[in-house]
Amino acid sequence: MTRPFREESLLHTPKFDVIRKTYPDDPDGLSRYVIRHHGAVGILPILEDGRIVMIRNDRAAVDAWLLEIPAGTMVPGEAPEQTATRELEEETGYRAERMVKLVEFFPSPGISDERMTLYLAANPVPGKPRPEADERIEVVLLSQDEAFAALASGAVRDAKTMIALLWLETGRVPR
Amino acid sequence: MTRPFREESLLHTPKFDVIRKTYPDDPDGLSRYVIRHHGAVGILPILEDGRIVMIRNDRAAVDAWLLEIPAGTMVPGEAPEQTATRELEEETGYRAERMVKLVEFFPSPGISDERMTLYLAANPVPGKPRPEADERIEVVLLSQDEAFAALASGAVRDAKTMIALLWLETGRVPR
Repeated sequence: MTRPFREESLLHTPKFDVIRKTYPDDPDGLSRYVIRHHGAVGILPILEDGRIVMIRNDRAAVDAWLLEIPAGTMVPGEAPEQTATRELEEETGYRAERMVKLVEFFPSPGISDERMTLYLAANPVPGKPRPEADERIEVVLLSQDEAFAALASGAVRDAKTMIALLWLETGRVPR
Repeated sequence: MTRPFREESLLHTPKFDVIRKTYPDDPDGLSRYVIRHHGAVGILPILEDGRIVMIRNDRAAVDAWLLEIPAGTMVPGEAPEQTATRELEEETGYRAERMVKLVEFFPSPGISDERMTLYLAANPVPGKPRPEADERIEVVLLSQDEAFAALASGAVRDAKTMIALLWLETGRVPR
């Protein structure tokens, strides 16, 4: 809402908080329960030969391995480009000299203020992954045709990954 | 995670709950804090003349009016096609005879089990909107070229709306 509000914190967790917002000018006195998030980044890493560096990620929230692009949550105080560089290396081992911003969006604005920025990592060089203690991740390289086929078949079920691949397919990613 | 777990409910709200998952086989004894959601639908309503029925939605979570496709949260026991038909009519007044499933995805699988199904509503007929008490919504009709330009300019910042429009732009929506 673009109106004055009061807020109250209900729950704190490592990746998000839950707050209750109330609007003094609201005749019904309704509350909105909202997830407050530090923000996140997704990275579309494209190798010199055109292949995309993707991951299979064992996701606690959905009890499934998902085919995704590398991504991660911003640490408070971190610039999104830093998060992107750090997460790409932690999750895949690949290092990119430069992150090129593609697009920014809200994954779930009905309940959460999470803002995600997508980056292109052009021609990253391989190295050794350093996953966090609570991550189970496998690196997988797909040609662009394989990635677009995975979209069409329903094998890609993660929103940020769909947006990144569709952004590429519609010619919106600079090379 | 695709492993056995215990869960504990931490918070209940009208649209989502927060639970803590722990994994008995995890040597570090780590917890994951996860949002449990009833599921949601998004609707891509395309008029006979090709224009798309979109909305401007005053979003409490992000303190902004967002340009979106119609959407809504499933009421427990409701089939997703019913949710889609109901929400399209409540938010825009338009009524569709049939919902055609396009694709299903997780908007934010790093923290939430929310699953969203996108539908095509072909040739819906106009009527009177009936927004819920806590919704502030304006209906806006865009040509497909205008919608794709809004994507390119950054005017569309909602993930489900980006996926729906990109799905259309890449020829994946049947007509």
